[in-house]
Amino acid sequence: MFVSFEGIDGSGKSTQARLLADRLRQRGRRVVEVREPGGTPLGERVRSLLLDPEAEIDGRAELLLFSAARAQLVSSVIEPALQDGAVVIADRFYDSSTAYQGGGRGVANLDWLASLHTFATAGRSPDRTYLVDVPTEVAVHRRQGSANDRIEASGDGFYSRVRDAYNQLASLPRVRVLDGTLPVDVLHQQVWAGVIQSMNQEP
Amino acid sequence: MFVSFEGIDGSGKSTQARLLADRLRQRGRRVVEVREPGGTPLGERVRSLLLDPEAEIDGRAELLLFSAARAQLVSSVIEPALQDGAVVIADRFYDSSTAYQGGGRGVANLDWLASLHTFATAGRSPDRTYLVDVPTEVAVHRRQGSANDRIEASGDGFYSRVRDAYNQLASLPRVRVLDGTLPVDVLHQQVWAGVIQSMNQEP
Repeated sequence: MFVSFEGIDGSGKSTQARLLADRLRQRGRRVVEVREPGGTPLGERVRSLLLDPEAEIDGRAELLLFSAARAQLVSSVIEPALQDGAVVIADRFYDSSTAYQGGGRGVANLDWLASLHTFATAGRSPDRTYLVDVPTEVAVHRRQGSANDRIEASGDGFYSRVRDAYNQLASLPRVRVLDGTLPVDVLHQQVWAGVIQSMNQEP
Repeated sequence: MFVSFEGIDGSGKSTQARLLADRLRQRGRRVVEVREPGGTPLGERVRSLLLDPEAEIDGRAELLLFSAARAQLVSSVIEPALQDGAVVIADRFYDSSTAYQGGGRGVANLDWLASLHTFATAGRSPDRTYLVDVPTEVAVHRRQGSANDRIEASGDGFYSRVRDAYNQLASLPRVRVLDGTLPVDVLHQQVWAGVIQSMNQEP
């Protein structure tokens, strides 16, 4: 099973990803956690390039760098783990590119983005995606005190467009939208109930 | 005017690119030379990653990294130079991805590659492309004594597929195929005659 967590920075998605991973391990499941961009030697080098506040990166180049890191992550980590029976939990996957580079920066239309994601992942899609939705003001408040990286420094209008693009994904069958203003443990119970149900339906 | 030079490693394309640049400068034209991957801070970092013999890079990731470097090169170097009236001479451009990653590695079909190139370059295409064609044995012989980088170490079958893919581009109106077994100065005269003719036809 392949589960991804999505949401704007400060939404709480990383916390939910970690809580799900911990609980699955307590139940004896093997879990592989991945984060985007990164998770491979190539991905970590791309990550440091992308998050460098000094780097001058064109919006199209940014999208292609994220996609390159993702292609490597799928082929060298995610596919082998799934073939091996592990649960893969991704803190961000290609919906992030749709929301950030497509919605936030407007560098590509959604149809072409879909073809790019299919190429980069060789057709591998999450079985379930939890979209942790919070108003941008809440996310900004939660991020206060932490240094902004290059992408986080893009401004509030940017985050509104990202959030809107995320919410356009809500109608996809694999996507569940969570209210990220709810307490952490309440959200975790919602995630857990859904994951357990999906696992019981596995062939 | 935007001129690109293409061909397998050892074809002599880089020599021809340099000779054309030198002659145009002697005639008082401003020339910007670019090489792929590279030519920008981001591109040079991607270049070192791509050519590292120790790096484990999936074929899809490789294509996307080249495309990311190209997007940055177009937006921060090629477009500004062309807007400013310079002649841009590229030692490799997107036809290299079509030939190497499409033909050589077979990671993507040609239609999707074309859409990727259009995206990465925001629609900018060379006005003229010189494809320096040599038999793979000739190229291998010329490369003897130089250390192989990661891509050059891919074997002779790989280079045959790359050459075939290049030759499929020969029918495009912008492409001129040169016989790379001819002497350097004969090839340069062929290039020069074509470039002068194109420039005289410029509006």
